[in-house]
Order: sequence, then structure tokens, then C-alpha cells
Amino acid sequence: MRRIKDLRPIKVKDLKLYVINQLELPVKTKWVELSNCQEVADAIKNMVIRGAPLIGIVGAYGFAIGVKELVEKGEDLKKAEEIKNILERTRPTAVNLFWALDRMWNRFNRLLENGESREQIVHQLFKEAEKIELEDYHANRSIGGYGQVLLPEKANVLTHCNTGALATSGWGTALGVIRSAYEEGKNITVYVDETRPYLQGARLTAWELVYEGIPHYLITDSSAGFLMKRGMIDAVIVGADRITRNGDVANKIGTYALSVLAKEHNIPFYVAAPTSTFDLKTEKGEDIVIEERSEEEVKRCGECDIAPQKSRAINYSFDITPSSNITAIITEKGIISHVNEEHIKQFFKYRGE
Amino acid sequence: MRRIKDLRPIKVKDLKLYVINQLELPVKTKWVELSNCQEVADAIKNMVIRGAPLIGIVGAYGFAIGVKELVEKGEDLKKAEEIKNILERTRPTAVNLFWALDRMWNRFNRLLENGESREQIVHQLFKEAEKIELEDYHANRSIGGYGQVLLPEKANVLTHCNTGALATSGWGTALGVIRSAYEEGKNITVYVDETRPYLQGARLTAWELVYEGIPHYLITDSSAGFLMKRGMIDAVIVGADRITRNGDVANKIGTYALSVLAKEHNIPFYVAAPTSTFDLKTEKGEDIVIEERSEEEVKRCGECDIAPQKSRAINYSFDITPSSNITAIITEKGIISHVNEEHIKQFFKYRGE
Repeated sequence: MRRIKDLRPIKVKDLKLYVINQLELPVKTKWVELSNCQEVADAIKNMVIRGAPLIGIVGAYGFAIGVKELVEKGEDLKKAEEIKNILERTRPTAVNLFWALDRMWNRFNRLLENGESREQIVHQLFKEAEKIELEDYHANRSIGGYGQVLLPEKANVLTHCNTGALATSGWGTALGVIRSAYEEGKNITVYVDETRPYLQGARLTAWELVYEGIPHYLITDSSAGFLMKRGMIDAVIVGADRITRNGDVANKIGTYALSVLAKEHNIPFYVAAPTSTFDLKTEKGEDIVIEERSEEEVKRCGECDIAPQKSRAINYSFDITPSSNITAIITEKGIISHVNEEHIKQFFKYRGE
Repeated sequence: MRRIKDLRPIKVKDLKLYVINQLELPVKTKWVELSNCQEVADAIKNMVIRGAPLIGIVGAYGFAIGVKELVEKGEDLKKAEEIKNILERTRPTAVNLFWALDRMWNRFNRLLENGESREQIVHQLFKEAEKIELEDYHANRSIGGYGQVLLPEKANVLTHCNTGALATSGWGTALGVIRSAYEEGKNITVYVDETRPYLQGARLTAWELVYEGIPHYLITDSSAGFLMKRGMIDAVIVGADRITRNGDVANKIGTYALSVLAKEHNIPFYVAAPTSTFDLKTEKGEDIVIEERSEEEVKRCGECDIAPQKSRAINYSFDITPSSNITAIITEKGIISHVNEEHIKQFFKYRGE
């Protein structure tokens, strides 16, 4: 067993939310306070914080902060619905956000029904957000525990985007599995896709791995296939922004291509995500609307312009990996292998939701 | 038929070589003089000019310039071998460089044997380099002519790296096919892989397409697979740095992954290259030593640092696409389909080399 440093991307103190500004990593580690609902919404939209589970957690705190604002200004609590709407409009793909906001909304309505005081409502909403945060952390440790068993004693593991402490309440999902395997004492080398256009791999995953001292190599996204061909990769593990009823996975653009390449080379392809990522109301991946972000993100890299002004660009933020390309989905409640609608149904029936 | 602007990346005047500094594109179009052999070698090594055919052409002029230096300094012409060595050491993968330098070397030795004057030798070597340049241009027009027939009247074509006028004497190989199809009046939209780490797609291909007014979209390298999945791509066309006897292709990192993805989606995958790219002495792709470039290229993007100082990186410059993934190879002498050793042998037997 090795000792792992426990990195946390958010802090709450005196009903105030502080987050690491992930846009400034890896150059600076700067904490910023998000002091009202709009600031929280902007932070999600502008990717000051990102990662599906963390978006959910910060969204939940954002709702509590929004209600706190109403209370402080003496406004009608009916306006809480507007707060929920503002937060929901920030990022369309991460189902955790809707899940977390629905949960906050239900809690809020129960508190109202119970005739709690306005101050008590705020207090309880912060408690509920904290509960979501802690549940996420424990889910991640559990995902790590289930998932690390799948990795051999000596493993070269490829990952995409950032699914680590910085994408969650801490520890991480896919990167959490890697962390758990490393903590267990396994001989792990991580191959980190840089993950254009936002470079979450280069900027965030590599930074976390440096922080932990876990051996890793940064690669360009287009190198992954050739590394697989050369026998340099034993497993691929990625996170998920949304998993549909049939097991299709929406995740960072590039995930789909990795799944095809892994299949071509007979390399296991794992998805690690908490059960809150499942969107059982949606039948299949094709039903998900793919978020398109600004063309400028592709035409820039960091602070640099890299393409002609007059060129157009396409910037899909996510893609869909069909369940048939996925070896197993690792959740906090166990592993789903042979991913399909029937197995997922059974899983939720017997493990509870 | 449409009119195409004729972009040329090098100029020769009064035995002096001028090239567009491709490191400054697309921001600035700056011509620089390469006035001695070492400057030519550095320009190739540091990618002031790049692209397999252009490396060959500039290498040829570099040899002529080196011999001119010897003559001007009154030095022994035996030192010409050193010049050849300096130029050969610049980039290991592009077979065109060795091909062009061998040709210059043979010409040089014939001139020596014929007892030509030192001035006449220099003059004739510049002539020979110019011949290589013009032959390349005509080869590209011919590749374009053969290749454009393969593209439908309305086609969304994906390409990788830069294989255009800037990679050759003009017109281009893979991008030359696109240019020819556009010139022919076809309704072409180009999807341009940005091509990390050096961004030849974003910086150079997009710039050429803006220059010509050809419709195009820039995409991140990892998006290509998902665009194929969505039915947005009708054909993939790439260049080659070296083609072995069995039809395996060494080309810019990322090419191999594209070939696997094209196969998965039943999309034709074409390689366009002059016959000088064939290395018939090498049996198969595995026999090619893959150039590894500096880790810093991956840890930077343009002028920006994008990864932690302490992270390591892997930077294979090229990968190998097996012949079995290639629908056809388009050369200036015709098209090789069903790419394998036997067909390539037949092709060179009947079309001459």
C-alpha cells in the first residue's frame, strides 16, 4: 500500500464556496470564491470548474447559494425556480447536474412544506449539497476499489480528459481507479491524452499525477492508436458524462475513437462513473443532443491563436461510445460487464439505485 | 472548372534560395533566404520548411548551395560528401530527402568525371535541383488528376497534417487531389485535422484553403472518429513520408488511427504520394525507425506551456499504417489499388520508375 495525497477541488466555509480555478492550472493553483448564483453558473459555463460529478456538486452548492441570496435580500422564495433554471442552462450534457439540481429542488420543496424558517432552509440546503459532495467522494473510493481489481499488477493505462480529484469531490472516477491501483501498490504507468481543445489531460490530469508522484507520459490524442498498435497500452479507462439505458456513453470528444481503437487491438475499454451518471429515461446515445462549444476553442490553444481568422471550426464537446465497444462499466455499486439494456436493468434492480 | 491560385513555397534567384518560414504561418507570411548549407540543414531540422517532397527539394538545393560555398571559398570539392551527410542527418523518415540527395550526389560525380569547371558544376547542380522541383510540381498535378476522379461530385473529405503547396514544390499531394477536385468544379468540403503537436493542419492546411477559398472546417484530431460515425465524412486522404515494398505507409502521427477509424466506418482511405516516396529496399513498416522529436513539442502548443514542467511526454513524429487499411495509393503514374507487395511490384514493372 502507498500513501496518496488527498486533493480536493472545492472548500465550503461559513456558507461560502471556494473552488480551484482550473483554467489557471497547471501554471497557478488559485482558489476563488463563488459568492452568488450567477458566479456559480458562469464558473460552470466557462469551465473554471468542470467534470460531470463536480459540475453536479458545484451546481448543488450554487442552488443553496442562490437561495441564501434570496433570503439575504428578503425576496420571495418562489424565485428559487429561476435559480434552478440558471444553473441548468450552463452545460447541457452532464446528467449529474440535473440529477443534483433535482435533488436540491426536492429537498427545498420538502423544507418549504415542513414550514421551516428561511434561515433553516438555507442551512439545510448547504447540508444537502455537502451530502451530495460526501456521497460522491465515497462513491469514488468505491469505484476505485471495484475498478483497481481489473488492472494487472503491472499495467500501462491510457486515459482521456480529466476524471480525477479535479473532476469530482476528490479522488476521481477513471483516474480514481488508477489512484486506487497505485495506492494498492500496483506498478502503474499512465498514458495521458492531452485532450484538445481544452487540454484537460495535459493541464489537469498530468498535474494531478505530478502531485501524487504517479509515473505518466503525456501524449497527443492522435498518438493513442499507434501506442496501442505497438503493444504499449494494457487498458483504457475513461469517465462518463451520461450513460443511457442501453449503456451508450456520452463522454469527452475523442472517447469514441479510443473505443474503436481499443476494440481493434483487443484492449479492454473501461468506463468508470457513479450511478448518478445513468440517465435511464434516455434510451440510447443517439437521443442525446451533443453540446457544441465555441469555434474559438479549436482555433486557439491556451492563449495562442493557431489557425487563420477566416477558417471555420467544429467543436463537439462530447461524443457517444456505443455500449458494444465497452468492456465494463465500473460504478460505486459494482461492475456491469456485457454492457446492454438488460444487464443495466438487472444491475439497478438488485443493487438499488 | 474553377481558377486556382498557384501558391509556391520556395523561390530561387541568382543561385539564392528563399523559402516561406512555415513556423510563422498563419500569422505572418515571411520569406527568408537560406544562404549556406548549415542554414538549409537547420531550416529542415527546425521545420522552417517541412513536408516530405519539399524536404527533398530544399535538400537538393541545399547540396547545390553547399557546393557553391566550397567553390566560393576555393575549397576542395571532396568536402561535398560532408555536405550530403549534414543534410541527410536533418530528418530521418522522409525518404524523398535521401532520394533527392542521392540524385544530386550522382549528378555531382558525373559532372566531376566529365571534368566540368567548378562554376559549371555549381550551375548544373542548381539546374538539377530545379529539375527535381519541377518534376515534383508536375507529379503533383498528375496525382491530382488521377486522384480527383476518386472523389464524388459532392464530397466531405478529411485530411491530416499538411500535404499541400507548402509541403511540396506547389499544388500538393493529398491536398493537391482536393485542389484538383475543386478546380474540376466539384462540391468539396474539407475537414482539416489540426494535427498536434505541430498543428500543420490548423496553421498550414487551413491557411492554404483560406488562400484558395475552398470551404473547410478545422477539427481537433480526436473528433475525426465521431464525425465519421455521424456520416459526415465521405473519404479520407493523406500523404506519405515513406512507403515500403509491401505498401505500408509511414506518415504523420495520427494517420494510423484514422485508417482504423475509416475501416470501421467503411470510408475509403487514400494515400497520395509521388513514386519517389516508395522505399522499395525496405520490406515493411515495422522496419522503419520512427522519429521521436522533443518532448517539449507536446508540452507546448504554439508559444504556450500547456503541461506541468515535471511531466514526461512521448512524441512520435510518425506512425505506420498497414497496407491492409489503405484503399488505394495515388501516384503521378497512376493508382495502386488492392495495396500489397505484388501489386506494387507490377505497378513499378509496367509504369517504370
